[in-house]
Amino acid sequence: MPRIGVALLLVLFAVPLVAKKDKAAEGSDLLFRLEAEFVADVAQHGHAAFITHFADEGVEVVDGGGFDNKDAMRKQAAWAEGTTLTWTPVKADMAASGDLGYTYGNYVFTARDKDGKLVASYGKYTSIWKKQKDGQWKVVVDMGNSSPAPTTGK
Amino acid sequence: MPRIGVALLLVLFAVPLVAKKDKAAEGSDLLFRLEAEFVADVAQHGHAAFITHFADEGVEVVDGGGFDNKDAMRKQAAWAEGTTLTWTPVKADMAASGDLGYTYGNYVFTARDKDGKLVASYGKYTSIWKKQKDGQWKVVVDMGNSSPAPTTGK
Repeated sequence: MPRIGVALLLVLFAVPLVAKKDKAAEGSDLLFRLEAEFVADVAQHGHAAFITHFADEGVEVVDGGGFDNKDAMRKQAAWAEGTTLTWTPVKADMAASGDLGYTYGNYVFTARDKDGKLVASYGKYTSIWKKQKDGQWKVVVDMGNSSPAPTTGK
Repeated sequence: MPRIGVALLLVLFAVPLVAKKDKAAEGSDLLFRLEAEFVADVAQHGHAAFITHFADEGVEVVDGGGFDNKDAMRKQAAWAEGTTLTWTPVKADMAASGDLGYTYGNYVFTARDKDGKLVASYGKYTSIWKKQKDGQWKVVVDMGNSSPAPTTGK
């Protein structure tokens, strides 16, 4: 193949790749990105990050508790040193209008027991995201429940 | 007021009322109606009603379990005699495109304990509804977690 042909092929393949990368994420891709940003923010700032990612009308549907709005969330106990929470979406779907979507998946919450040992508990979550009037995406509903501890395969 | 005036007034008020009643529910109203129909169907048909209200891609996010798709739901244990489940949405919201929405609220699950006594357990739920290609509304995600037992006020 002449060198000009190779160069042309490179251009033909390169342009769509660049275009895809520059295009703003939408649909499920956007929801996966929002969750990844939320996870990263919680890894860095802990419980405080929850407040910033929730809509004014948002609620946390607390396992063993009630519907905590943002005021109630601010009154929740701060996380003790060593506490971490991370989660992995397994599915995401967006409304045709691109203003309301959800993801669900698995979470791992790690906290110290009364002896100071870090203990992981496992669960599942559903998050519903809504595009706010200012264009920002915020969580309107976040709910979790427990999963069996994963088997180690031993 | 002449009798013709009264008649005219009646017509003026009656027409919007009839129009409102005949108009198909949409937005939050539609979601509340879908939940009411689902509740009524579960009251009549029990656990079997869950299957018919779920989308093919729908999952039940089982408290203490995993993500049960419709096949897994069909394998869930049938409800023993006396078991009932009912729920009351407290909030509903719909995407601008009117094809994806959710409700959350409270449920009461009543089942016999080992002594045959009916015992109620209380929880919260979130349901996500999606309009299917054939125009029918089905549940794509249903999740529950526990609430404290209500205080009796005694």
